[in-house]
Amino acid sequence: MAEEKLPSRSEEFSEWYNQLVIKAEMADYAPIRGCMVVRPYGWALWENIQQALDTRFKATGHVNAAFPLLIPKSFLDKEKEHVEGFSPELAIVTIGGGEILEEPLIIRPTSETVIGYMYAKWIKSYRDLPVLINQWGNVIRWELRTKLFLRTLEFYWQEGHTAHATAEEAQEETLRMLDVYADFAINEAAVPVIKGIKSHKEKFAGAVQSTTIEAMMGDTRALQSGTSHFLGQNFAKAFNIQYLDVNNTLQYCWTTSWGLSTRFVGAIIMTHGDDQGLILPPRLAPIQLVIVPIYKNDSERGSVMEVVEKIKGELHNFRIKIDDRTEVTPGFKFNDWEMRGVPLRVEIGPKDVEKGSLAFSRRDNPGRAGKSFVPQSNISFTVKNMLEDIQKSLLARATEFRDTNIHDPKNYDQLLESLNKGWAFSWWCEGDECEARIKEDTKATTRCIPIDQPSESGTCIVCGKKATKKVYFAKSY
Amino acid sequence: MAEEKLPSRSEEFSEWYNQLVIKAEMADYAPIRGCMVVRPYGWALWENIQQALDTRFKATGHVNAAFPLLIPKSFLDKEKEHVEGFSPELAIVTIGGGEILEEPLIIRPTSETVIGYMYAKWIKSYRDLPVLINQWGNVIRWELRTKLFLRTLEFYWQEGHTAHATAEEAQEETLRMLDVYADFAINEAAVPVIKGIKSHKEKFAGAVQSTTIEAMMGDTRALQSGTSHFLGQNFAKAFNIQYLDVNNTLQYCWTTSWGLSTRFVGAIIMTHGDDQGLILPPRLAPIQLVIVPIYKNDSERGSVMEVVEKIKGELHNFRIKIDDRTEVTPGFKFNDWEMRGVPLRVEIGPKDVEKGSLAFSRRDNPGRAGKSFVPQSNISFTVKNMLEDIQKSLLARATEFRDTNIHDPKNYDQLLESLNKGWAFSWWCEGDECEARIKEDTKATTRCIPIDQPSESGTCIVCGKKATKKVYFAKSY
Repeated sequence: MAEEKLPSRSEEFSEWYNQLVIKAEMADYAPIRGCMVVRPYGWALWENIQQALDTRFKATGHVNAAFPLLIPKSFLDKEKEHVEGFSPELAIVTIGGGEILEEPLIIRPTSETVIGYMYAKWIKSYRDLPVLINQWGNVIRWELRTKLFLRTLEFYWQEGHTAHATAEEAQEETLRMLDVYADFAINEAAVPVIKGIKSHKEKFAGAVQSTTIEAMMGDTRALQSGTSHFLGQNFAKAFNIQYLDVNNTLQYCWTTSWGLSTRFVGAIIMTHGDDQGLILPPRLAPIQLVIVPIYKNDSERGSVMEVVEKIKGELHNFRIKIDDRTEVTPGFKFNDWEMRGVPLRVEIGPKDVEKGSLAFSRRDNPGRAGKSFVPQSNISFTVKNMLEDIQKSLLARATEFRDTNIHDPKNYDQLLESLNKGWAFSWWCEGDECEARIKEDTKATTRCIPIDQPSESGTCIVCGKKATKKVYFAKSY
Repeated sequence: MAEEKLPSRSEEFSEWYNQLVIKAEMADYAPIRGCMVVRPYGWALWENIQQALDTRFKATGHVNAAFPLLIPKSFLDKEKEHVEGFSPELAIVTIGGGEILEEPLIIRPTSETVIGYMYAKWIKSYRDLPVLINQWGNVIRWELRTKLFLRTLEFYWQEGHTAHATAEEAQEETLRMLDVYADFAINEAAVPVIKGIKSHKEKFAGAVQSTTIEAMMGDTRALQSGTSHFLGQNFAKAFNIQYLDVNNTLQYCWTTSWGLSTRFVGAIIMTHGDDQGLILPPRLAPIQLVIVPIYKNDSERGSVMEVVEKIKGELHNFRIKIDDRTEVTPGFKFNDWEMRGVPLRVEIGPKDVEKGSLAFSRRDNPGRAGKSFVPQSNISFTVKNMLEDIQKSLLARATEFRDTNIHDPKNYDQLLESLNKGWAFSWWCEGDECEARIKEDTKATTRCIPIDQPSESGTCIVCGKKATKKVYFAKSY
């Protein structure tokens, strides 16, 4: 209920974000360093994200299951890169039921190992393939620098794990799920992501190839927003995931994994928000429309609430909220719901009752320009169109912002300059050294090598050698 | 795909259950002692349970959120009974990010403490009350004897935690959620539960009063299937959950908690199953109806599959599965889907194509009696009615079985006899000693004191003193 203003988004982006997450009651700090509590408003957004993704997973033939939180520490050692990547970040259970455990158990940082173990048990024949399982759950990675939603010790996510008979099928699956993520991000969250392949250095520990959707946040930093990995036979060999093929010959499976987490809630906040607070995309917003009744006395209240109830009934297909609090003013309510990012606000006062009209305010276009008076008739149709329009305009605005801030530097000096104010899209020889030099000079990393590449070739922006791939460089979260 | 028969349910109930859970691919043993993997078929059932409950929680004004998995060990010490109850069952994290933690963290066995801490932070005024939050998640209790779904180290559940201004409101909430559980159990799962209050000895560690829904399994043992606790001000005082009342006076809140877990999957299996396998209640079954096409050659196949597709289209509101596997016989498929408990099976063969009919088999009534031939027209209506009838008949059958196995012993000897073959419903003086004596003599415990009591009074079945309450005694899981 605090009335303090948020820090300026353009001047203090990071602090704006931190305060907004708390103030809008999206999340709070848990009593353990680096852990968060996702509050009901934030969780409702995550539930809508879950539903949008889960529908897509099921439509592409996947089923859900639940694998254990605890994994024997020795499992991690079976895949060399995997153990190197995750060992520094582990939470380890050493005591259970009052006794010191013979083998310490790790809390899953990701579940390739334990799922690999189970797949080896379940898969016998080519008839059992593909196995297409997803899991919604929590994982723990012991991070040092944390930020609500973006990087916390515990986070919530889904992790898909699939096993296939051939490399081609597993590669197709990897890209299919990348497409699912991109489709979700663009069409549900209005976050215009770029699909591409991670560099060798930036890939998932244990993958043959990692693909990613990368988004540009409001401060132009990049956010890795979902990843899909082709794991080759790395985990199949580590855990003996084998099948008998049609010729009765024992073969190793090819596996994939893919994940998207509560980090995406941060992506939505950082993509669309403004100085007034959150702006939530209508398709995912927990509340799509708030109705604020305006009246001065009981007699006005009676006639206003009658219309409010009528409108509410007609809008039963939308997620609506009627703010009939009496202890705060309409002005306070307007600010409050703007801060919470509700896409559409309707005010209904005595004049509207008289005229049969309603006053709409669009959150994506605050002030006069976003205000309109519409007839009460056909209200469901009007709201549907307005929400669709807001959804589109958020995507268009974010896409324009992104494209304006992707630069095409001509040389290394210009590259450095570009990376101070946005992303660079440049030719790169794919050499580790050139990648490392940029990271050292600017803290920027390669974000992804887009799958669709220009047909010509060029010269590496760092070393000048011939390059066949253009890559995005950016500072990231 | 194994064809081995299950053990006899009536003769080896426990082994029947253990094998069925594995064979029907509901769950499997994880590589860590006492942990389970919930396989896709089992998880789909749990998702349907979740949806049925979540709808009810939201309809009664609750919202979901997520609280941390890890809790400082010291939090537990703040509530005396709570720490005594849960200390022996803790999994403790002592290492994080490669370093020994200053304060060990426990993996939540339940979340009253950490949620209490957050509520103390969030709740300021009477205007903030009630707080009605639920969480879907996983918890760990280091159990010694485990059984899939019924008792595992890690399990999945929901835990509701609410805070109120008055004791009356908190008590109302406790009973409201008990009613929600009972309504769900009876009307969705066809599990006829009995609502009641736990004895002082059997209540939740930290509660003032615990209420429960108790179900009778197929071997007549009782299963505590969901609990709702009135916590009084115990946790409010331990964590300083306070609010300013209308007179600006600081008051402690009154809190409740309530939970239902994946144990309920076990309840469904043990209530309805038979020698052939699972019998799933239609309202929760992941697959409500399986269609098995029957044909001998390609020409028959063509005309049969045409009808199958037509029927499938008309049944789009149901969860259906078409089993068009070619590598197994129809007979194998019948056994397979019977074992998996699909409520309704439809066979479509060349004769059915000719006659415009369909052959239905009810899972709750295997053999000739459950078989019927119905016209293809109006199929959606027919299926709807059949599924409703199966749902009803499962509830009726389970209720009859339960009532037949609740005895009314006249003296202590008869009580001992009753507890060897079922439950006893007897007068009890509410004394700890009488309760303890029965437990020692029979291993049976008080299950619950039903809320609706006979108007008269009686004499305690153990000590003969005057008693005002009748209670259920039973051996339990």
